[in-house]
Amino acid sequence: MSATVSPLAPKSYPDMPVIDGVRMATAAAGIKYKNRTDVLLMVFDEPASVAGVFTRSKCPSAPVDFCRANLPHGKARAVVVNSGNANAFTGKKGRAATELTADSASKAVGCATNEVYLASTGVIGEPLDATKFAGVLGDMHASATGDFWLEAAKAIMTTDTYPKVATRTAEIGGVTVRLNGIAKGAGMIAPDMATMLSFVVTDAAIAPAVLQSLLSEGVGPTFNSVTVDSDTSTSDTLLLFATGKAAGQQEVSDAGDVRLASFRAALNDLLKDLALQVVRDGEGARKMVAVTVTGAESDAAAKRIALSIANSPLVKTAVAGEDANWGRVVMAVGKSGEMADRDRLAIWFGDVRVAVHGERDPDYSEAAATAVMQQEDIAVRVDIGLGQGSATVWTCDLTKEYVAINGDYRS
Amino acid sequence: MSATVSPLAPKSYPDMPVIDGVRMATAAAGIKYKNRTDVLLMVFDEPASVAGVFTRSKCPSAPVDFCRANLPHGKARAVVVNSGNANAFTGKKGRAATELTADSASKAVGCATNEVYLASTGVIGEPLDATKFAGVLGDMHASATGDFWLEAAKAIMTTDTYPKVATRTAEIGGVTVRLNGIAKGAGMIAPDMATMLSFVVTDAAIAPAVLQSLLSEGVGPTFNSVTVDSDTSTSDTLLLFATGKAAGQQEVSDAGDVRLASFRAALNDLLKDLALQVVRDGEGARKMVAVTVTGAESDAAAKRIALSIANSPLVKTAVAGEDANWGRVVMAVGKSGEMADRDRLAIWFGDVRVAVHGERDPDYSEAAATAVMQQEDIAVRVDIGLGQGSATVWTCDLTKEYVAINGDYRS
Repeated sequence: MSATVSPLAPKSYPDMPVIDGVRMATAAAGIKYKNRTDVLLMVFDEPASVAGVFTRSKCPSAPVDFCRANLPHGKARAVVVNSGNANAFTGKKGRAATELTADSASKAVGCATNEVYLASTGVIGEPLDATKFAGVLGDMHASATGDFWLEAAKAIMTTDTYPKVATRTAEIGGVTVRLNGIAKGAGMIAPDMATMLSFVVTDAAIAPAVLQSLLSEGVGPTFNSVTVDSDTSTSDTLLLFATGKAAGQQEVSDAGDVRLASFRAALNDLLKDLALQVVRDGEGARKMVAVTVTGAESDAAAKRIALSIANSPLVKTAVAGEDANWGRVVMAVGKSGEMADRDRLAIWFGDVRVAVHGERDPDYSEAAATAVMQQEDIAVRVDIGLGQGSATVWTCDLTKEYVAINGDYRS
Repeated sequence: MSATVSPLAPKSYPDMPVIDGVRMATAAAGIKYKNRTDVLLMVFDEPASVAGVFTRSKCPSAPVDFCRANLPHGKARAVVVNSGNANAFTGKKGRAATELTADSASKAVGCATNEVYLASTGVIGEPLDATKFAGVLGDMHASATGDFWLEAAKAIMTTDTYPKVATRTAEIGGVTVRLNGIAKGAGMIAPDMATMLSFVVTDAAIAPAVLQSLLSEGVGPTFNSVTVDSDTSTSDTLLLFATGKAAGQQEVSDAGDVRLASFRAALNDLLKDLALQVVRDGEGARKMVAVTVTGAESDAAAKRIALSIANSPLVKTAVAGEDANWGRVVMAVGKSGEMADRDRLAIWFGDVRVAVHGERDPDYSEAAATAVMQQEDIAVRVDIGLGQGSATVWTCDLTKEYVAINGDYRS
């Protein structure tokens, strides 16, 4: 948690409604931080449907392994999240820590350990002392409450400078349902998947397989389209729970059910909201950049080109310096490996077209381009001129503060 | 050219011998810089064999296109290199500029334009005023001299803080031959190929096809194994010329000729020397890092893992902060996409084993690891524990100075 809040932070937080069927509590277990909460317990008094998406790292954390093993069971009663220690690359001790935590949670909540979900975030490679959870989970279960979303978001922060929450409503078969989500993440943020930890709960009644389908589809243009530093965490975890408590809504058990349209749109919008909040809290970020690529051979090619631009240190430092250095955008297009024809490329910063037909725009105005770069939110658009593929990804600038934050993170 | 020389610069420069058959001159054509040379002319009074390796960017510069088109001819009489402007993404104007430059050079030297090679480095997207070369190339040809290597290296610098030169000798069929090389590059340095501009000349007599074979093989573990910032330039050019002036050496016309052993070793050693000099001048670099991966499924897998580590902003900022943060090395192994088993990984900083069997080394000493990180040259080794593949790549740390240099490069 940084002393200085990102200048890109939201100006206000939404009122987070209570979602029937989920209660939360936080505690200060002293994992790493002093004088702040570092454990979150989410309790579903009746089993909730659950879906999950995790890091594609070949060296995932012990909690990721634990969640993946439980997911086929499809039902959740408890979620334990800690900040300060990722319980990653901790070997047998790491597995023992997940088992001990799940055991403590199952006893506190009164459920099976395969109904428990775990997530940890923080330093990699340090053994996690899970005995610290045993002492607090019982009290947390007793005191857990439904009106606690912002506090929940605060307990899972690491280098985040602000808590991340979002809420939406949707309608399924005439019944209004709610979705609330929290997220954390500021560095080691890159596809796939983008993040970080995020937990979304809805009171809709949706079967686990359908929930999984919705979530897997939803992450592509949202969490998997944001990048802070191209570094993929060992611990990325996004879990979606459905409590089924929305009065009168019949459970949806088919992913093709037309009644899901409104819910799908609301879910995707909420995921995008949370994902962009993560980028806006990118370590050291002072500017947010939306990179849109059009005219590529395919959507997938467009996304790879967009990520090549968004992950380029030279593009990101130019943004930090408010320098309309579109030559570096050309460089990043060229290194992406995707088809591109220099003489068909066009590049815009905001609404200012800076390059067209393989050279500087004849009407190029350095002053106009620089004025765009001086804004807080910058749109970069590249048209490849070859096909119909398009994609947008979001990133932030690369500043001296990023280097400072990451040069002494452990100390 | 920076006011502050990299702390990793060589303590002294080698004496660069004259190579029979090549003469050089530099001039201040005022392309971008003031009060310094910015054009280099290399002249081969008799046609030299030539080989080349270029950027894999899909948006290469006009000079790269020009060189590629001439290379099948196999013979060179002149090389014109300028700094300050890359003549990249300059469209028809860019092609016209290469034609005008080649025309001026062919007139000055008295050769065909397909015997001229061009390279430009600097800002992308700005039209290059090639008329500035026309006025200086005639005088440069007249004054060119063989004892001018360090000045040649200086004329091609951009953000480099020191000129890069190297020399080697070898033996072909009992005759001693010499190799001299110069290079420039400090940012936008990444495979493939790593760089930057580099020009190597030997007095050996070697046919163009053989020369190309030697060069293509040689770049893999040298220029294509260094990375400063993962950003691949549009202009990367490495040219190798053989003047054939070594007295009494019969031309080698077969790439499998056993007489090439000594030359091949000397060439590869010289390429590595120049490539590492580029990394040691990485923008803002304060530390040099050699990342060695062993025990991977294949050499190619090892190289991809090593590059994932070497390009990770979080690893590079940890090095800048002298933080033995091996958790980030684990992260980078995990995101590489290559096979890895957490429980078989071992990691060393210098001679200090920090992790083994999927967790922190039981004998881990933070003090010993930190002592390694405080050095200028840091060796990171990762054993994957799965196979026999190995590779080494070289990089530098990511510092606030990198951000500063690239945040206001154009201004």
